[in-house]
Amino acid sequence: MKAKAIFYHAGCPVCVAAEQNVVDAIDLSRYNVEIVHLGKDKGRIREAETAGIKSVPALLLDGAPFHINFGASLSDLK
Amino acid sequence: MKAKAIFYHAGCPVCVAAEQNVVDAIDLSRYNVEIVHLGKDKGRIREAETAGIKSVPALLLDGAPFHINFGASLSDLK
Repeated sequence: MKAKAIFYHAGCPVCVAAEQNVVDAIDLSRYNVEIVHLGKDKGRIREAETAGIKSVPALLLDGAPFHINFGASLSDLK
Repeated sequence: MKAKAIFYHAGCPVCVAAEQNVVDAIDLSRYNVEIVHLGKDKGRIREAETAGIKSVPALLLDGAPFHINFGASLSDLK
């Protein structure tokens, strides 16, 4: 079974760079990658917060949050 | 030809978590991954700084720096 990766972003330039580099480097034979735009899908902000995510872009790998550089705080997306 | 990824760390718990999750997720069929411990290999701190890295853990993908969470500032490793 593949591991789960969720990339949370908000369409910002920092987010786009992270998606095009870090997310693109993920091994898709081992990970299912879901991309979530929290600016458009605000209903999932709480889920991201609960997972420990404080800013975007961030990558949730098997439930562990990894913030990648800094684009925007989750609180600014509400 | 494979793309180049360099993971800079300092052995800190945040660094270890990033290595075991984010670095482990990289597709090794497309990337050559080098792991650099800046606490032990201080001679490479300047190289990391020049690449735009300000803290560890960080991942340099094709020359673009991505800071992953926050473990320590590069200036604290000197």
